[in-house]
Amino acid sequence: MENNKRYEAGIRAMEELFSQEVRNGMEGIKKVSPDFWDMIVSFGFGDLYSRESLSLSQREIITLTSLITQGAFEQLKVHLQAALNVGLTKEEIIELIIHCAGYVGFPKAVQAMGIAGEIFNKNE
Amino acid sequence: MENNKRYEAGIRAMEELFSQEVRNGMEGIKKVSPDFWDMIVSFGFGDLYSRESLSLSQREIITLTSLITQGAFEQLKVHLQAALNVGLTKEEIIELIIHCAGYVGFPKAVQAMGIAGEIFNKNE
Amino acid sequence: MENNKRYEAGIRAMEELFSQEVRNGMEGIKKVSPDFWDMIVSFGFGDLYSRESLSLSQREIITLTSLITQGAFEQLKVHLQAALNVGLTKEEIIELIIHCAGYVGFPKAVQAMGIAGEIFNKNE
Amino acid sequence: MENNKRYEAGIRAMEELFSQEVRNGMEGIKKVSPDFWDMIVSFGFGDLYSRESLSLSQREIITLTSLITQGAFEQLKVHLQAALNVGLTKEEIIELIIHCAGYVGFPKAVQAMGIAGEIFNKNE
Amino acid sequence: MENNKRYEAGIRAMEELFSQEVRNGMEGIKKVSPDFWDMIVSFGFGDLYSRESLSLSQREIITLTSLITQGAFEQLKVHLQAALNVGLTKEEIIELIIHCAGYVGFPKAVQAMGIAGEIFNKNE
Amino acid sequence: MENNKRYEAGIRAMEELFSQEVRNGMEGIKKVSPDFWDMIVSFGFGDLYSRESLSLSQREIITLTSLITQGAFEQLKVHLQAALNVGLTKEEIIELIIHCAGYVGFPKAVQAMGIAGEIFNKNE
Repeated sequence: MENNKRYEAGIRAMEELFSQEVRNGMEGIKKVSPDFWDMIVSFGFGDLYSRESLSLSQREIITLTSLITQGAFEQLKVHLQAALNVGLTKEEIIELIIHCAGYVGFPKAVQAMGIAGEIFNKNE
Repeated sequence: MENNKRYEAGIRAMEELFSQEVRNGMEGIKKVSPDFWDMIVSFGFGDLYSRESLSLSQREIITLTSLITQGAFEQLKVHLQAALNVGLTKEEIIELIIHCAGYVGFPKAVQAMGIAGEIFNKNE
Repeated sequence: MENNKRYEAGIRAMEELFSQEVRNGMEGIKKVSPDFWDMIVSFGFGDLYSRESLSLSQREIITLTSLITQGAFEQLKVHLQAALNVGLTKEEIIELIIHCAGYVGFPKAVQAMGIAGEIFNKNE
Repeated sequence: MENNKRYEAGIRAMEELFSQEVRNGMEGIKKVSPDFWDMIVSFGFGDLYSRESLSLSQREIITLTSLITQGAFEQLKVHLQAALNVGLTKEEIIELIIHCAGYVGFPKAVQAMGIAGEIFNKNE
Repeated sequence: MENNKRYEAGIRAMEELFSQEVRNGMEGIKKVSPDFWDMIVSFGFGDLYSRESLSLSQREIITLTSLITQGAFEQLKVHLQAALNVGLTKEEIIELIIHCAGYVGFPKAVQAMGIAGEIFNKNE
Repeated sequence: MENNKRYEAGIRAMEELFSQEVRNGMEGIKKVSPDFWDMIVSFGFGDLYSRESLSLSQREIITLTSLITQGAFEQLKVHLQAALNVGLTKEEIIELIIHCAGYVGFPKAVQAMGIAGEIFNKNE
């Protein structure tokens, strides 16, 4: 079935991006709304992250930038780790945040850099 | 002088990103505020775009994403052209906008895709 | 096929919401990116608007509010008309905008009310 | 006096929306600025929530949507409870958040759904 | 009556801020919703701008900054003129926009500076 | 050297705005990215806060307004204290937040007033 393919592609993308522990945490949403969980997996990760034309590390550049710009700092933590998991270096992430300072202003960039520091420490 | 170096680096980055026509248009700001123009060139393009660690095409991925996320569609036009100028393909730009749909919602992604269509037409 | 069902449900929802003319205009996106068009129809209208639990008029209350809050005034025009098409009254739309003033501030509410006035005039 | 009527209407609306405990918490603002407290009650709840044309549950649909769109998650907690108090069902609230995903992106919708899960648990 | 006092104070504040022509334009809202017009005058200008503790020019500094930060460029035009009317100088307005660049990013600051240039030209 | 002058001007501005304790906390960023720290000091405080045409207290009015409008409440705490340090009164800050309510909506204004109450308490 078509929908199963989308769901399965989403699960595979999530396995590349997130640790088992993070994926378990995300499943909390499944208890509140199984339908929403299905959308997150099938659409968010299956339809979007599984597409070609951009690599997973390019996709995380886009994701990090969008999260910083909208001030979504809870999600930023998870995706900073995902960015490292799919091959972005600390240096590239720091550079991304510095570039963002000119586009979103210093308050959000400073907050993002502080969170990046925490995530980098966990990876040492 | 140090500041001249920053300004000159900014001018060089702008020459890689924008056509002569676009740069002339930008200079309208210089008449309103020469100091602000100096900041745009020295800080925006000299300090940010001229740094290493990320390529100009990676920087345009960040810029486009931030502009779409904050709904800055006037600037988006100029940077869609700049993105093409520094080597992003139409396919990659379309893919970036599709990825953004999941992060910023469809209204901004649809508006961005419409503008991208206009810019692509001009480049044919 | 599952995906065809999602697309067909999306087309049906769009027919209830938008005039033929508006739907033709939307198809401009299809030329820029057929994949994005498929997502708009299958996910945006098929997966979201076609769900139960909320009526189409309740869904337009949500849509209008989100568009006003994020300042997406281009899309607001289309959805103000859609809201009238699925049964919201002018009085209810005006009331929605007034309520929003307290939540998003007057600048966006005033701009929304001006656009609503234009759409109402076209419907007289 | 006219102003007393606005204030009294505001207090009545707040009594329908919020528990005694929540209203006591809100009064912390009164100590910082009695004038601002008066505006919140007289304008926010007296002028807006007490108007006719939309029911309190329709008003909470608007409020929840605006809060999710602007990422105001502190206020979201209080209004998720208020939404339940004035008669919205869990199913309708979940549906509202799912609909929002397409308009504001998944990061804010996921965060909202997580908070909704917490509020639903408290009501069991 | 109390409400008349609020309305009259609002009208007086608007007369200090805006030209007759601008005020006539604003009254277009009155035709769409007389109630909303009353709120704009009585609350927006009567309750807010007519308060003491801050001068009208300080209030315009706040207003301009908030409009730039939220990208409300339609309203920005009207309030740039209002800021000049209540005594802010061109130099101060330019300085405000430059300061904003660090807090909201260059895209919104550049757009604001362009609009400021247009308004300054009309005042020469 | 020119850059040292910018850095030194930034340090001087920071000393006027922030306590030693706050400045020490800010330096956490220096460990994550020395280059970003240099930009914060040289551009953020050296190029922006050290300019003439606006006083430090006028600059803090702009900063507070922008932070409230974008919902940057972490930075708001630090700048509420800075605003008091450079001479804004509690009454003026409260008035600024009340004015913002009309421009950004009540949710952000209420959250800002709650934080202002905490900062005021620490200063008694």
